[in-house]
Amino acid sequence: MPLNAQPGQTRWRAGHKPAAEQMQRSPLDILRTLLFGKPIATEHQEHSKLPKYLALPVFSSDAISSTAYATQEILLVLGAAGLWAMSSKDLYSRLGMGITFGIVSLLLIVVASYYQTVFAYPQGGGSYIVSKSNLGILPGLVAASALLIDYVMTVAVSISSGVQNLVSTPFAQHLGLHHHVVPVCVMLISIVTVLNMRGLKESGALFAGPTYLFITMAVLMIALGVAGSFGLYELNLGSIEAERIRAEAAGLKQAAGGISGMVLLGVILRGFANGCSAMTGTEAVSDGIPAFRKPESRNASITLIWMAIILGFLFLGISYLATQFHVVYVHYGHGHGAASSSPVIEQLANMVFGQTGAPWRVALYYTMQISTMLILVLAANTAFADFPRLSYFLSRDRYLPRQLANVGDKLVYTNGILMLGFFASLLVILYHGSVDRLIPLYAVGVFTAFTLSQSGMVKRWLTERGPRWRLKAAINGFGAMCTGIVMINVLIEKFLEGAWIVVVTSVVLVFMFRGIWNHYESCRRCLSLVNREPDREQPINTVLLVLPSLHQGVFPALNYAKSLSQDCRAIHIEIDPADTPRLIREWDQYVGPDTPLVIMPSPFRSLVAPLVRYVREVSSERPNHVVTVVVPEFVPGKWYHRLLHSANGLLVKHYLSHLPGVIVSNVRYFLVHEQGKVETPPMACLTQPSGAPEGMRPDTGHGD
Amino acid sequence: MPLNAQPGQTRWRAGHKPAAEQMQRSPLDILRTLLFGKPIATEHQEHSKLPKYLALPVFSSDAISSTAYATQEILLVLGAAGLWAMSSKDLYSRLGMGITFGIVSLLLIVVASYYQTVFAYPQGGGSYIVSKSNLGILPGLVAASALLIDYVMTVAVSISSGVQNLVSTPFAQHLGLHHHVVPVCVMLISIVTVLNMRGLKESGALFAGPTYLFITMAVLMIALGVAGSFGLYELNLGSIEAERIRAEAAGLKQAAGGISGMVLLGVILRGFANGCSAMTGTEAVSDGIPAFRKPESRNASITLIWMAIILGFLFLGISYLATQFHVVYVHYGHGHGAASSSPVIEQLANMVFGQTGAPWRVALYYTMQISTMLILVLAANTAFADFPRLSYFLSRDRYLPRQLANVGDKLVYTNGILMLGFFASLLVILYHGSVDRLIPLYAVGVFTAFTLSQSGMVKRWLTERGPRWRLKAAINGFGAMCTGIVMINVLIEKFLEGAWIVVVTSVVLVFMFRGIWNHYESCRRCLSLVNREPDREQPINTVLLVLPSLHQGVFPALNYAKSLSQDCRAIHIEIDPADTPRLIREWDQYVGPDTPLVIMPSPFRSLVAPLVRYVREVSSERPNHVVTVVVPEFVPGKWYHRLLHSANGLLVKHYLSHLPGVIVSNVRYFLVHEQGKVETPPMACLTQPSGAPEGMRPDTGHGD
Repeated sequence: MPLNAQPGQTRWRAGHKPAAEQMQRSPLDILRTLLFGKPIATEHQEHSKLPKYLALPVFSSDAISSTAYATQEILLVLGAAGLWAMSSKDLYSRLGMGITFGIVSLLLIVVASYYQTVFAYPQGGGSYIVSKSNLGILPGLVAASALLIDYVMTVAVSISSGVQNLVSTPFAQHLGLHHHVVPVCVMLISIVTVLNMRGLKESGALFAGPTYLFITMAVLMIALGVAGSFGLYELNLGSIEAERIRAEAAGLKQAAGGISGMVLLGVILRGFANGCSAMTGTEAVSDGIPAFRKPESRNASITLIWMAIILGFLFLGISYLATQFHVVYVHYGHGHGAASSSPVIEQLANMVFGQTGAPWRVALYYTMQISTMLILVLAANTAFADFPRLSYFLSRDRYLPRQLANVGDKLVYTNGILMLGFFASLLVILYHGSVDRLIPLYAVGVFTAFTLSQSGMVKRWLTERGPRWRLKAAINGFGAMCTGIVMINVLIEKFLEGAWIVVVTSVVLVFMFRGIWNHYESCRRCLSLVNREPDREQPINTVLLVLPSLHQGVFPALNYAKSLSQDCRAIHIEIDPADTPRLIREWDQYVGPDTPLVIMPSPFRSLVAPLVRYVREVSSERPNHVVTVVVPEFVPGKWYHRLLHSANGLLVKHYLSHLPGVIVSNVRYFLVHEQGKVETPPMACLTQPSGAPEGMRPDTGHGD
Repeated sequence: MPLNAQPGQTRWRAGHKPAAEQMQRSPLDILRTLLFGKPIATEHQEHSKLPKYLALPVFSSDAISSTAYATQEILLVLGAAGLWAMSSKDLYSRLGMGITFGIVSLLLIVVASYYQTVFAYPQGGGSYIVSKSNLGILPGLVAASALLIDYVMTVAVSISSGVQNLVSTPFAQHLGLHHHVVPVCVMLISIVTVLNMRGLKESGALFAGPTYLFITMAVLMIALGVAGSFGLYELNLGSIEAERIRAEAAGLKQAAGGISGMVLLGVILRGFANGCSAMTGTEAVSDGIPAFRKPESRNASITLIWMAIILGFLFLGISYLATQFHVVYVHYGHGHGAASSSPVIEQLANMVFGQTGAPWRVALYYTMQISTMLILVLAANTAFADFPRLSYFLSRDRYLPRQLANVGDKLVYTNGILMLGFFASLLVILYHGSVDRLIPLYAVGVFTAFTLSQSGMVKRWLTERGPRWRLKAAINGFGAMCTGIVMINVLIEKFLEGAWIVVVTSVVLVFMFRGIWNHYESCRRCLSLVNREPDREQPINTVLLVLPSLHQGVFPALNYAKSLSQDCRAIHIEIDPADTPRLIREWDQYVGPDTPLVIMPSPFRSLVAPLVRYVREVSSERPNHVVTVVVPEFVPGKWYHRLLHSANGLLVKHYLSHLPGVIVSNVRYFLVHEQGKVETPPMACLTQPSGAPEGMRPDTGHGD
């Protein structure tokens, strides 16, 4: 079939066979298939369109799962300020609820703002795209870097929080899992990575179960908790009491005196900054509009509103229960022995359902905890769809390496998935899987992206001036202002605790994006055919055969070298001068005077240095020539036999590859197996003569 | 100059320049020079001839240093049997001295035996050579494997013992070195390895100081100790007492009752087996005869006798002192907390000189300990000369990989030195640097080599029948018998404790030697030119250019490909069918119809699979052709820019290299630096056009 391709025929399309027949499968390929599944052909790419009831779990699991840690991060600030210990629980409760209300209001503003984005960008309006198209390249890149960091953080925080909820259950403690938080986190991240490599993506069926289960359980918990607060349902109040005493024993003393107004303001701002982690994931719907059923924008906007309602309700409910029953969430101890209280949601589940007691209570407790963990893992999974997609956009726009645009066997952006898994694992390891230590790094990126995206929308309305553009600009403008203020607050409150890392990383990323773009641009200009005629002159070829000693295996290389050019010569690096006379004798006998043999002394026994020097001289004396260095390479029948032969070929190749105008060709010669089994064909030594040949020195059989 | 080589001129010798000018020095080269020194030219190889007073330290440091641990390993057996705790110290003392006398007698027999070897093999009579030339290949290989293992053991035991003596001094304990025995050992081995890589070898001046110092100090210690036993010199008896009490506290109870005859015999045999470690290194003189001044054999034999006298005297003296003053050497504790008493030689030094007290006593104590450590390090250094030399012999005879015969920059057998350093470090790490745990592995190899070597001498006398052959055969025969019996004793006593590892390793090594020889032999037969005319037919070349996209950088590769053969075609693997029309259009425009362009669909987006399939088809349809696959390779100006370009070239090369009759040539194209600095020459894109060219898609600039 390939012979059909003849000169004069410019192009010719070869057929293809099914994958299984295409090539021999190595053990590595088999392992890859086991781990990641069979490859999918490009033509099978499909775009699933989600109905609203499936789109809701897919796009809101990230946001809704934030309720699993947002309340506790607010209480952490109040607890650290000692407010939990004040005689009156009013302040604790009022502050907690106040901050929660503030964040929910902000959520409504942001949702109103994104509501407009959904209609303006029906093809998907991620912060990168909106900022870049309206505000320019630099804001777009800043948004992109903030988002990339944010996706890594989402995975790290969600998985850490999920594991925190898992290991706080008595059963997991019985198994001793709480001593292995980091390995459990890394294992979960690895599982999610592998599943995504297998092409999991955002399958509605996968997301629906855990998300709706979590929503149901959380609503049930809030309802029963509220009922309990009116004495209509029996709560396990003992568990909360115990937690309070435990925290007390840790010796927090700050609350002894009163609290000044300034300190209070600080606490509120810090609590607000921490609680804003509830708003992460809000932008997901606007990114994924093309996945909705028609009419996409309308369906997406309805889903967005539902998401806001559920998120707001759960956040308020959980904060209400937690402050109403004076749940305390503090750190105690220092250094390696440091620990946190159980997660707030676990304390509430324990209070409302119960770690012990009636079987249905225990069952509900574990269902709550497991659904919490599952929705948090799903939230991480969302980032595994978003990060590679954003990397692909950036790679397509030449701000990230091209490899991130590669589509893998399973039609996913393999390299982006691996990168996300790697960096998230790294973060979890560096921060010992502690949600509380990761949170300070979290909200900065999210609010930067919010602010830029909404500012972009404002710019858009001002430029387009469509119907009701003043109102639209006002809504987005208010959103941008609010999120901008919060961003600055978060940045100030959290700067020393870790937000500075995000800032530094963002700046580095933006510079990297620019650098990568410049490099690709310079490549493109340099390689363009448009302004400059390509060089079409055929080079003259000088061929050098590297000759360690003369034997059957050298001849295929010699024949090949001769076929390349009239000017072909052999070069022998003389490591041991005692061998040279024999080589010359054999050369005369078997090759003859047509091909010159150059002997290059090597007083320091280096193979490479004299060879490089000779090649350099040749190519400097013949500037229009290409020097082809032919290296005979020995291929033993079994891989471990390679250890018995020196890797000089590799060494030669490595050093010569730095020289311009030099091309290294390895001509391999295959050896007959010891058992007589023949390891292949045309350029090999095939027959084994019977009986040892006479007159050969035993130690010079085969080459280098 | 290279142009002088013209066809018709069979050979031509190129000149050479000093090393410094030969090639650009990479950072790695500079590091290598810093670590291992400048290379030495082959012509500067010199053979130093040693006078007797320098040969003695060089060749006997290994043997003499054994006295640092031989006595304590005997006492360890007596201690473990509980004999140290018996009310009468007579049995302890009598057994200790009895075993020592037995070993010294054996030493005399062995020395008498080697005395004959020295004259029979004036070119050096190592066990491998003597066994192989007289008994045959298999015994030779067994001796070689025993010796290789033995050299590794020598390094591990000597260094461990040296460090044991170092860390038992109060000063080292003050520094906390006793908590870091393994790192200190590995560091010392690394230092010795690097020094040997630098070409240290057996420099007489280096060895003389520590060896004579140790002999002097040991003789002084024995003399003062004996004087002390007659009340002529004040000893620190307190230190010994303390040691005894400490050991007692460890709770050894076996000695409560009497001891049966069988148990006693067992103790004697085990003690003898342990003490035989004193005899390691005895064969060194006979290995190194060529290094002596003329008359070599006579001088060597005198040195051998002196070595025996010194070794015998020191061993007897140390054992006498140790048993006379009831020095105890036991293990106490179990598992990780386990520890040993201080080394016997340290206890004696403490008793005779003193860790505290008069300054001259303390000074002598430290001098003794440091000289002990130094001579032990020298003993390890001896193995660093012997192991690579034996590896070289084996490699020359094709029983070990050829690489072990490579002579490095400094005219030493680099690979052998590195292997020894690696395996000795591994042993030290596996055995936690414990002399007592290493000793069971030690003597088996030595005595196997002794027995085989002397049996070989017997065979030689029986064959040669020179003057007084009966006496000579009798002497060697007696030696072989004695060492054979000891070997069997050691093997039985130590089998479960670790000697089995040596046996298994020996068997594996012998099989490996045979396997390697068979492989090289099969290579030699297959590659021999004698019985079979080499194939001289020039192959027909089919050239395939791998074409990801068309740009300036492809043209050098295209021109090169065209220069190789009339039958040249380009092959494009179609990963994204959307790019194909543009490629075809550009091909028509810039290349034209003379060169066919083959489009190969890749439904699974794999670059390699369709390419391999196509190349296979071409080479199976054209059995007499060679297929040259030309891969354009991108060389960015800076190394980190490589990350921005896929490594598809490497991938293609790797997979195609498994196919017979296929040769892969990379034609590199160098890119202009971003700053306008040009990264080299003829096959590169040199000028950067001003202004971006029009009409180019931004994401297809440069190839794969």
